[in-house]
Formats: sequence, structure tokens, C-alpha cells
Amino acid sequence: MMVLEKNIPYKIYLEESEMPTRWYNVRADMKKKPAPLLNPGTLQPMTLDELSGVFCRELAKQELDDTTPWMDIPEEILEFYRMYRPSPLVRAYFLEKALGTPAKIYYKFEGNNTSGSHKLNSAVAQAYYAKQQGLKGVTTETGAGQWGTALSMSCAFFDLDCKVYMVKVSYEQKPFRREVMRTYGADVTPSPSDKTNIGRKILEEFPGTNGSLGCAISEAVEDAVSHEGYRYVLGSVLSQVLLHQSIIGLETKAACDKYGIKPDVIIGCAGGGSNLGGLISPFMGEKLRGENDYRFIAVEPASCPSFTRGKYAYDFCDTGKVTPLAKMYTLGSGFMPSANHAGGLRYHGMSSVLSELYDQGLMEATSVEQSAVFEAAEQFARVEGILPAPESAHAIRVAIDEAMRCKETGEDKTILFGLTGTGYFDMVAYQKYNDGVMTDYIPTDEELARSMSECPKVD
Amino acid sequence: MMVLEKNIPYKIYLEESEMPTRWYNVRADMKKKPAPLLNPGTLQPMTLDELSGVFCRELAKQELDDTTPWMDIPEEILEFYRMYRPSPLVRAYFLEKALGTPAKIYYKFEGNNTSGSHKLNSAVAQAYYAKQQGLKGVTTETGAGQWGTALSMSCAFFDLDCKVYMVKVSYEQKPFRREVMRTYGADVTPSPSDKTNIGRKILEEFPGTNGSLGCAISEAVEDAVSHEGYRYVLGSVLSQVLLHQSIIGLETKAACDKYGIKPDVIIGCAGGGSNLGGLISPFMGEKLRGENDYRFIAVEPASCPSFTRGKYAYDFCDTGKVTPLAKMYTLGSGFMPSANHAGGLRYHGMSSVLSELYDQGLMEATSVEQSAVFEAAEQFARVEGILPAPESAHAIRVAIDEAMRCKETGEDKTILFGLTGTGYFDMVAYQKYNDGVMTDYIPTDEELARSMSECPKVD
Repeated sequence: MMVLEKNIPYKIYLEESEMPTRWYNVRADMKKKPAPLLNPGTLQPMTLDELSGVFCRELAKQELDDTTPWMDIPEEILEFYRMYRPSPLVRAYFLEKALGTPAKIYYKFEGNNTSGSHKLNSAVAQAYYAKQQGLKGVTTETGAGQWGTALSMSCAFFDLDCKVYMVKVSYEQKPFRREVMRTYGADVTPSPSDKTNIGRKILEEFPGTNGSLGCAISEAVEDAVSHEGYRYVLGSVLSQVLLHQSIIGLETKAACDKYGIKPDVIIGCAGGGSNLGGLISPFMGEKLRGENDYRFIAVEPASCPSFTRGKYAYDFCDTGKVTPLAKMYTLGSGFMPSANHAGGLRYHGMSSVLSELYDQGLMEATSVEQSAVFEAAEQFARVEGILPAPESAHAIRVAIDEAMRCKETGEDKTILFGLTGTGYFDMVAYQKYNDGVMTDYIPTDEELARSMSECPKVD
Repeated sequence: MMVLEKNIPYKIYLEESEMPTRWYNVRADMKKKPAPLLNPGTLQPMTLDELSGVFCRELAKQELDDTTPWMDIPEEILEFYRMYRPSPLVRAYFLEKALGTPAKIYYKFEGNNTSGSHKLNSAVAQAYYAKQQGLKGVTTETGAGQWGTALSMSCAFFDLDCKVYMVKVSYEQKPFRREVMRTYGADVTPSPSDKTNIGRKILEEFPGTNGSLGCAISEAVEDAVSHEGYRYVLGSVLSQVLLHQSIIGLETKAACDKYGIKPDVIIGCAGGGSNLGGLISPFMGEKLRGENDYRFIAVEPASCPSFTRGKYAYDFCDTGKVTPLAKMYTLGSGFMPSANHAGGLRYHGMSSVLSELYDQGLMEATSVEQSAVFEAAEQFARVEGILPAPESAHAIRVAIDEAMRCKETGEDKTILFGLTGTGYFDMVAYQKYNDGVMTDYIPTDEELARSMSECPKVD
């Protein structure tokens, strides 16, 4: 029988009165700020007016604001948050027991909503600001489909048009994700498509292409800027997204503070950085202000290793090179992870905020191979009862590894990780794992050098 | 902006200390008890020893006990419950607003776990008792797959073998459900199969059959009784299942009592009765004891209308006629819902407990057509943010209808319904609805008379 720690619930749900009502902007506490977005034509920092042609004005303001630490969450967004938040902070008692580790493991579980992930936290904010601005709708891209689903839900709620460019291979392999989006009224197009110039160009150049996130971004941006009353929205990478996702970390921090939990190490998977950035923000704030110290670990797939093998440079955010330039750890905007790579975390770049924090040595990064990731996913599912998304399982892998190191050393560290979502729409990948046919792939140095050589020369 | 009712949270999560620690057995408060299970050979009530050949002994005891009102939940099961319970009682503010109704609508949401439904509440109990008895494993059937998934999770947790006979058409159309079960280590066989005598016989008689729940039950029972160390477990219909599922109603009642909520009408979907029976149990207890009055409404599909068009008679629980006889509202054990019927709620019979309560006029029943059900599902998903299982959407349909009646009359009734699960594995059905090709089917009187004529003559 399990002995629960005195006075700490198995799952911590904050009371509604304890829920955060402000987002936290970690950039405000960074002495050296993340590099600004650049206009690719002039190589000058993007102005508010320039950005407002692509993004909603309020979101463009948030994107540029690196000095305001706290921003009030509008009441309508707080209402929506109440539909699926607070998310629980769970003590992984059963996992600890299975591992026989003295470590204490906690996870913040963001999967208990129909989008299946944390993406909803920013989707609702972006849809809200679009509605406030009187727009007709928004365009976006989606890969694995979590972001597209989250945005569809948010647009249905605020009665906005939602046009989703879905990476073609996902569109075909994940028809159920597509149907969830359609149920929420979204218009879903496989990308590349013949709806946009860039899509037609890519189809002409690569007729049989499976599509990529970078390419779908190009199409969504083109669609937005060429239609009156539409703007483009993005589910990760951007600083505004990290701002909205700070709700994850703020709830976690509030739960930790309430029960006297002090994490030694905080672990999150990293694709574009939305979950990791959101989870660590308030903890990183304390570290930046010298109030507390924490280890932070970004976990990325070995098949798409932007932090661990990319270069820190200005690059395009998309394949079609229509977006502003962002300074980030990047593998080059033409990089595409190997076809055997399952799930998300397939973006070529990384949040500028996290890139800068990593570059300053304030956080660590590691990469893991996918068969080891699914092994951790299965182990976790069987003892903790939650079938994790492949993305989230990257964090589980490293949390387990850390806990096993504690078993060796006898340390009773407190390990906290972000469980970003559920794997219900990823069963093709689980099937491969169950059938023993899942493979790993690590790109060669030559391959990465080639894709990174295409980054624009800025300095 | 939404005005939240004073002092009542949007979502009510009980504190861990407020969680029920006993199950409630509604049979104890019934003056006229449900009719006993009969041995089909002797037509005498099944004895504990007879039942223990099929079920775990402790579960057989629970099945026969119609006098003990409260039973302690074993500590190990309470621990498992803590992994995914309490489930929230949610005020459907956004649905109320969309409908413009003065009614107050609450739903108890059981879908926030990997099995995707309330089925886990009984699965863990049944797996626990099997483990306690020192068994190697259990066998069962599954249709839509929720029960099979729940049992797989529970067996993984207690390290038990789990053999699932999955209705063939579901096995083929829901490969992802199958993969979830495999991820939890279950052995999943499409039914009818050549693993059992009854399966081989059915395959010989109907070579191209899609299978049915009744047929899969026959196979699972045969497998259990012909292998040392195995017992059969069932996810609905049985009185032991209603006992375990009373956790739903007990939590709901505790939340209502804590915040002074008094439901006027309580609505649940009904296939075999596990969710409905669990949800209403403690409220029905008050009604039986004359302490309080409530309206209860069972909602079933028009294509499988056991309450509303079946007969109250002794019948087999399975197609192969290997189970005990149960007195219940039944369409005949050979009845199979039309092929266009999506989702669960396809069982030919109904819980003996609920059947007796219905026969005594203590609850109502109604049937709904599936296109109207999916219309309600879509509306609910868009405003409340949860994509419901088709089964659960039957209850949503009637809750909306009741709320609209309140709009006509101006009454501010309190409507409570059970949201049993999520529809993430039912997107084929949603796709049909999205594509406008979903159809309804109501069996003819002749069809039902024919299938009901096969019920055994007992009286």
C-alpha cells in the first residue's frame, strides 16, 4: 500500500480563487534580452505596424514587449480557462514505487482537455484578441494536430473562422484529428495545397512531398495576409505564446508554494518551446532575480536536435521564407526530420527566449531517441494510468533517467516535469512500438551542416 | 461575460478527504428486490458456488448481496481511484447561455482518464478482487472498446493477464482502441474467433459475421471457465458493476450537498445500465426511503430500445446462451442493432436493478435517434469544450430538450446528467455526421417481436 506524504494531496488542484489572473513575461527579468525579430528585407527590427499586418495588434504588442513582467489575463480568457483548468499537479507515487527511487517525482498534467494538450492555453488567447479586433478569422498550420485542434475549439467558442493548413502526411495519417477540427467547424486543408502561391510552387518543385511544418506556416501566413479580416496565429516559438503558456508554470508554482514543494530539477519536452517555456517561466524568473536556483532541462528528439546540435543564428521561421527572421537555435528552415520520426517536436528552430536562456547557460538541453521515449511512455502509462503523447514522453524519459540516478546516489531530489498531453491520436506510433518495428534516426553531421548552411547571413 | 453563481465553483472537485470510501448498494433499499439470476438448466437461483465458477468469489458475493447497503472500498482500490478521481461536477454555464434557458445544468464528467469513460470504476475493482483471489488473469468482451481499455489498464496495474474478445467490426474499425489495450499489455482477439467452441460454431453458421457483444460474451465466458486460474468479468449489466459505479453518484451527491444543489431531474444514457445505475444510486436511495423525490430519465438509442420497447422477462445475457438467466428489459439475446448504429449502447438487455426500478415506475425511459444525438454532441462540444462519446451524447440530447422545455415554461429547474466519456476514438462516427451521411434506424415491431420471441420460457 502506498503511503501518501502527509498533507500533500495525491493530485493538487488549485481552488478557483487561487488560480493565476496574470501572465508572467520572463523576458522582463532577463538582463540580456532575446534578440528581436528582424524584417528579412531591411534586416531591421520588426515594428509594431509591420507585425500587425501578420498578427493581431494586441498580440504583436505582446510579442514586442520585453519589459512588462505581469499582464492581466482578460476576463473572457479566464472564463475559458475555467472550463478545463486548473490542471492537476500530480505526485507520481506509482512511478516512484515502480522505479524504487528515493526521488520525488511530480508532473503537471495538461492533457485533460479535448485538444489533448497545453496548446489550448495560447489558442484561446489568440482567438480572443482576434475577436476583440473585429477580425473574421485566423489562419494557422498544424503538424501532429494538437495546435490545430486547440485553435478550432477556441475559434468555435468565439465564433471566428478557422483555416488550418495541416501537414499533408498528418492530414492523411491522422484523419481523426482532422475530424475533431471539423467538428469544431474548422476548414482543414492538406499542405502543400494549390490554395496559395507558395503551396503551388512547392507542389511544382516537389510533386510527391509529404509537406512540413515550415511549408504549412508559409501557406497559412500567405492566406492571412492576402485576405481582408484575417490574421495568422502560431502555436509555439513566439514570445507571446510563452507568455500565455506561463499559466502552466504559475499554477505549478502556486501549487508548489501552497504545499512547500521545492523542485530541484524541472524537465520539459521542447519542439518550439511553448510548453517548456510556459512551465519554467516563473521558476526561471526566480533564478534570474537571484531568489532561487533550479536546474532546467529541455528534452528534444535526437532526430530533430535544434538545441543540442543546431546553431544560434538568425533564421526564417518557415520553409517558404515569408516570415520575419528570428534569432534561435536552428537546424535551418529547410530541415525536415526523418520520416520515421513520430509525433510532434519536429520544428527546425526554437523559441528565441529559450534560445537566449540556453545560450546564457541558464538551462540545459539533452536529446533522446524515440524507442527509448516509447519505452518510457509505456512504463508510465502502465503505472500512472495516463497514456502520454509521444512529445510528453520525451520529458518522462529524462525524468525517469534522473530518478534512476537518484537511486544510484541515494539522493531524494524533487523532480518536476511537464506532461503536456495525451497520446489518443498517436496510436499509429504506439502500434509501431507494440509491433517492435519502431526505429531510431540520428541525422549525420553532414546532413545538419547542409541544412544549416542555408540560414541567411545577417551579421 | 458569465456571471458565476455565488460560492459555487465552475467545476466542483471534491477534496481527497471528502471522497467516498464506501460503495452504496441500492438493492438494500428496494422493498421489492430485483429478480435473482437463474441457472438456465435448473431454473433455480444461482448459488454462490455456481457463480464463483464464472466470477471471482468476492464479486459473486457482491452480486448476490441485496441487503447490505454500504460496503467499504478496499484501500488498494481507493488508491487507484485517486489516480483519476474525483471527477468534476461541472456547471454547464456556457451551454445554458447558448440555449438561453433559465434551467441550471450540471454534468458529472467521467471522461478524464485514459479509458475515456466511467468503466474504469468497476474495472479496477474487478481486477483487484481477481488479484486478491490469486488468479492468473481475467477474460472479457468489449464492443466500442471503453470497457476493454479500462480492464487492460486495471490488469496492467495489478499485473494480471487480460484477454479481451473484441467485437470483430470494432476490432477492425477501431484499431486505435485495440492499440491502447495492447499498450497496456492485453491480449485482444477479434470475436467470433476460432479460439473457442462457441466462436467456431458461430463462424461456421455465419461465416461473414461482424460479431456482436452477446457473441463476444459467450467466447469470453467459455475461455474463462475452460482455463485454470481465470475468471470472467463484465463491464455493465451486473449488480456488482452498479455497486462499484455508485462512486459516480456518491461523489455527485457529496458535491451537491456541499454546495446546496438539489437536482430536479437526473439523466443518464443506458446501454447495460452501469453509468445510469451508478449515477442515480444514492439519489434513488433517498427516493426509495421517502427522503427526497427526483425524476430519473434513462436515455437509450432508438435503434436498441430495450427499456422503451423491450419486454420484462428472463433472458440470456449472451448470444451463445452459456450465461445465467437474468430478468430484465430485453430485446432478445439474438438482437443486434442495425449496422448504421454508431458507438456503444448496443446491448440487448438491461441491468436487473434498473429494470426492476423502471418496472416499479420509479424511473422513466426515453429513446433518441442518432442524428439528433450527434447534433447535441456537436453543440455541446463547441460551447463546453468537451468532445463527448456518442453514448454520453444521448444524455446531452435529453438534457438539452429538458432545458428547452424550461425555456418555454420559464421554470428554473436543476438538470443533472452523466457525461460518461469522451469521443476521441469515435471519430469515424463524427466523420459521418460531419459529412452529412449519418442515418437513423428504428427497428420495426415485427423485427423486435421476432427477436423477443426467442427469450426462454421461464414462468
